Amino acid sequence: MKLSITGGKSFEINGNTTIYETLKANGVFLVSPCGGKGTCGKCQVKVTSGGVSVKSYGKLSQQERREGLALACQTSTTSDLHIEIPEHSKLVLGGKIAVSIFKDTVAYLQSYGVSIDPLAKRVSLALPPPSIQDNIGDLQRLCRSLEEMGITNMRFAHKFVSTLMETLREGGFNTIVSYSKQNDTVCDAISAYPPAHPNGRFGLAIDIGTTTVVVYMVDIANGAVIDIGSTYNSQTKYGDDVITRIVHATEGGGLADLRNTVVGDINTIIDFQCGKHNIESRHVEAAVISGNTTMSHIFWGLNPASIREDPYIPTVNYYPIWRGEKASLNINPLAAVYTAPSVASYVGGDIVTGILASKMHRSPGISLFMDIGTNAEVAIGNDEWIMTAACSAGPCFEGGGIKFGMRATQGAIESIKIDPATLTPSVSVIGGGTPTGICGSGMIDAIVELYKTGIINQKGVFNPAKSPLVREGEDGLEFLIYRDSTPQGANAPQRDIVLTRDIVLTMVDMENLIRAKAAIFAGVSLLLREAGLTLDVLEKVYVAGGFGNSLNVEKAVMLGMIPDLPPDKYIFLGNTSIIGAYLTLMSDTLRKDLESIASKMTYIELSVVGGYMDEYMSAMFIPHTDLSKFPSVAAALGL
Amino acid sequence: MKLSITGGKSFEINGNTTIYETLKANGVFLVSPCGGKGTCGKCQVKVTSGGVSVKSYGKLSQQERREGLALACQTSTTSDLHIEIPEHSKLVLGGKIAVSIFKDTVAYLQSYGVSIDPLAKRVSLALPPPSIQDNIGDLQRLCRSLEEMGITNMRFAHKFVSTLMETLREGGFNTIVSYSKQNDTVCDAISAYPPAHPNGRFGLAIDIGTTTVVVYMVDIANGAVIDIGSTYNSQTKYGDDVITRIVHATEGGGLADLRNTVVGDINTIIDFQCGKHNIESRHVEAAVISGNTTMSHIFWGLNPASIREDPYIPTVNYYPIWRGEKASLNINPLAAVYTAPSVASYVGGDIVTGILASKMHRSPGISLFMDIGTNAEVAIGNDEWIMTAACSAGPCFEGGGIKFGMRATQGAIESIKIDPATLTPSVSVIGGGTPTGICGSGMIDAIVELYKTGIINQKGVFNPAKSPLVREGEDGLEFLIYRDSTPQGANAPQRDIVLTRDIVLTMVDMENLIRAKAAIFAGVSLLLREAGLTLDVLEKVYVAGGFGNSLNVEKAVMLGMIPDLPPDKYIFLGNTSIIGAYLTLMSDTLRKDLESIASKMTYIELSVVGGYMDEYMSAMFIPHTDLSKFPSVAAALGL
Repeated sequence: MKLSITGGKSFEINGNTTIYETLKANGVFLVSPCGGKGTCGKCQVKVTSGGVSVKSYGKLSQQERREGLALACQTSTTSDLHIEIPEHSKLVLGGKIAVSIFKDTVAYLQSYGVSIDPLAKRVSLALPPPSIQDNIGDLQRLCRSLEEMGITNMRFAHKFVSTLMETLREGGFNTIVSYSKQNDTVCDAISAYPPAHPNGRFGLAIDIGTTTVVVYMVDIANGAVIDIGSTYNSQTKYGDDVITRIVHATEGGGLADLRNTVVGDINTIIDFQCGKHNIESRHVEAAVISGNTTMSHIFWGLNPASIREDPYIPTVNYYPIWRGEKASLNINPLAAVYTAPSVASYVGGDIVTGILASKMHRSPGISLFMDIGTNAEVAIGNDEWIMTAACSAGPCFEGGGIKFGMRATQGAIESIKIDPATLTPSVSVIGGGTPTGICGSGMIDAIVELYKTGIINQKGVFNPAKSPLVREGEDGLEFLIYRDSTPQGANAPQRDIVLTRDIVLTMVDMENLIRAKAAIFAGVSLLLREAGLTLDVLEKVYVAGGFGNSLNVEKAVMLGMIPDLPPDKYIFLGNTSIIGAYLTLMSDTLRKDLESIASKMTYIELSVVGGYMDEYMSAMFIPHTDLSKFPSVAAALGL
Repeated sequence: MKLSITGGKSFEINGNTTIYETLKANGVFLVSPCGGKGTCGKCQVKVTSGGVSVKSYGKLSQQERREGLALACQTSTTSDLHIEIPEHSKLVLGGKIAVSIFKDTVAYLQSYGVSIDPLAKRVSLALPPPSIQDNIGDLQRLCRSLEEMGITNMRFAHKFVSTLMETLREGGFNTIVSYSKQNDTVCDAISAYPPAHPNGRFGLAIDIGTTTVVVYMVDIANGAVIDIGSTYNSQTKYGDDVITRIVHATEGGGLADLRNTVVGDINTIIDFQCGKHNIESRHVEAAVISGNTTMSHIFWGLNPASIREDPYIPTVNYYPIWRGEKASLNINPLAAVYTAPSVASYVGGDIVTGILASKMHRSPGISLFMDIGTNAEVAIGNDEWIMTAACSAGPCFEGGGIKFGMRATQGAIESIKIDPATLTPSVSVIGGGTPTGICGSGMIDAIVELYKTGIINQKGVFNPAKSPLVREGEDGLEFLIYRDSTPQGANAPQRDIVLTRDIVLTMVDMENLIRAKAAIFAGVSLLLREAGLTLDVLEKVYVAGGFGNSLNVEKAVMLGMIPDLPPDKYIFLGNTSIIGAYLTLMSDTLRKDLESIASKMTYIELSVVGGYMDEYMSAMFIPHTDLSKFPSVAAALGL
């Protein structure tokens, strides 16, 4: 059967797969934070012709159903089908979710002053052809030439040797060999090809987030990023955060489910990129994985159970370089797959790559690094030492646990003003048009504006008397940020399938946000205290994560989420994990730097150094119970 | 359905497998040099009750069929079946085929003055359990303890790490780790178990001959040989010698056939040994493979095509240590599988292990080493140098190409006397009883006796006038060595299923034998000449191969197959390949010695150094055209 989409493309579909799966397999990604479980209600499509079999309508209202909407993950077809995809269902690939702020990655790599020396290296060899007099075997002949070039202690996998005879003869004993260095003494052969073989060579930088997966396809000969792909981590269907994933992993078969799910997500992107750019998968010879400790463990099928059991020990901090086939990636089976080392169970490889990307490890001045994603991790240090901790902030700044929360993509309210006189909000929407939700920076704006106008108090509690926009909702009091004014019902125009809805911030949202910001600030405070430092020594504050450039520092300071420092000390880096992975892929020098960063990082377990609960409770106010910590806020509010 | 055998055992059998396969799968091995192709006619069984489906009777005569005989490899069952296995069909496992003359292998290992240091080593570790203060990951914790014991640069396969979390916790962070050394700088982890785990550990010495496969199951903790198994190499069905095997390998799919066949043979023995001795296959942690260059290539699935193409280059001389899973052996998937290095395409790892087993590399005196098997290889040298060559002798001394040829097992005529007066032969049969064929030593005896009595001339041509036992047979003239006197036909007693037949030596046999002995002697002569040596410098001559102790030196000298030296210089070693593999398995020092032997061996290609054809043609007489090379023979015969 055929599935066609308004706008052009059409694909084969069979009755056993959902519309969601078929679209995904063809590189069309829908918003689906639940990973296709039918619970988030976000992967909506409008069926304009054809028959469908619907398993569940999930959260869709009667009205939405009447308009022909269905959840792609719960719907399969019974005939040729034509659908439209509403704007708010489209996952923006390579958008703000994925991309680092460093657009010119090659220039950024060069700014480290290192030469291009990728994980998979290449050497051209002209072996003297064998004769009766010089009759050593092919492999020894290869080794001899490698050793003449100073490449010793190469290890050869069985698969490599299996095709060597033909390869050498095809090239008249001229060959191009790829290899990786395991360490200073041992190399691993990856491939050998005759010189006439198509000689593109590629590598992957892969950021495995708890919520999203980002893949850079890189031409490792020059560092050019050929394509960027990203998708939601489909593991989300097994739980929103690492703890629920670990719990699922330790149940029968759960680890394999989780592993297959995320590897499937990555392979979907790899396959799409290879297809689009006409790249043979065997020419992808290297990959760098950057993820938190749990994500990295699950990616490799390592049982993460001990990560959540006191004393919180992962199986591996420093991963051997394993092979593409062991990673189950759709790349060369002998590809070198390097995994960014982690510091502890809750400060993973993504933070280590993040610090590499920030360059804070190169500066004698002391910096603070904050990665605010599905969880928040912080680090303080310089070129000599780094201390780090994980804050139990949760995913709300990425939209998790917030009723209308979403990531900072098309349709998200990213900033809000409340007119002090009329107390009416005005919003700014990413990409313009009708908003479909609210992202992290929008949430921060909202709380601060609500607080400044007295609609909420210091504890985030609504004052219904203050504004008619505070109303009783399903979950208690809520504030109406955006009123849906699109005509509804039978008379609604059918041509426009951009759904609009009232967008509110609930009491529950407010509580979650204040808990999250308190956890982050308490983490920073305690880490500074453990380092014996005060805020004023901080030269720079690097903020990584989905916020990108869109975080308004003054507002975040006013919320009491980040330290009260001049805005010019704040530097927003976006997704540092993917950039750090890219740097690691492209330079062995930076890979060594990465390992040196990891070994230099001292992990502070906030729950066992005394005083965390005090710091946390003090931070559960806007901006803080101790206003002396927020002098600029106190001044601005006249407190 | 059930297959039962007179004598006790019975097995399940289904209609899709042959009796031969079912017996083999259950550890009952039949003589089958053709590997179950139906052409050699040797895997005879007598069906005493039950229905059979017969694909072919092959060489069986009408009389034999009437007696209920069938070829096990061509027969399957249609009901419960009872069979008897004639003595001459039983493959004697662990008999002279397989076993080295060194019965006390541990004592022989000790005679090298090395300590037990097997390929798979073991170390017990008590890791400090983790704590919040000491929170490094499990793998780093393991590495730290290993490094404290001086074991650095360990490499960890993904499979090893996959189960580490559970293993360490099960043993309270006490663990026993097995590993192998790839070289002086790199180790590979094999397994980790809690201390309470059953702690037997085992290794295999495997000799892969062109015709037979021998497997020693060894307790590597102390070197005890627990079991010896051997079988015919079922590759024989694709050809008798390495050249026909290579040809088959280069045809579509042929390499995989050959590989699966010999790996299947080995696994059959391993499974049988593991079952018999209650050994878990994962506790078999090491294996040493010793075979000629072609056999080793095919074992690893490496294309052997270039071995038979000028300039005769194998893919590998020195093999990396690969894993059990890559070898497809039914042992621990991470077991270290070491392959004896080869010297050249026609002097393989089996000769290098043979020299290790002979100790000639340790003596300043010059020795000659001859391995007479499916082909013949020779080496000359001492503790400083070794020169080696391959002779195109063919397999006739193992029975190949000889009408009644067989290996030196039960039922073989191993020596023959011809009464000079009556010209009647009398024979001696291995195990006594009725002979079923003639083995290598019997053939040599026969030629020499025929020559001495004038029944053949110097060129091996029969003189029919000399004896009535020279008669016209299917293949021309033949000599009747043993006359079958058992009653035949309808009146034959049915209880005795030992088949008897006239045993003859044909003109074709004679030509093959003289060609073979000439090739061996020419090889030795040319190698001596290349070394600039004469016979009198040889202190010892080591003879390896199926002959074992049964070769009569005086007769072999009289034939002109081996140099005319005093019998006390000759030392018979039997299967040196398997003993060399065993020594290599048990001692890293001897493994280094093995590699040093291989690197020291200079290969002489007989076909390109001048003079080979002259030497060969001169040796095509009994004993030789130049009698001055055989003074003792000249004296004995009064020539």
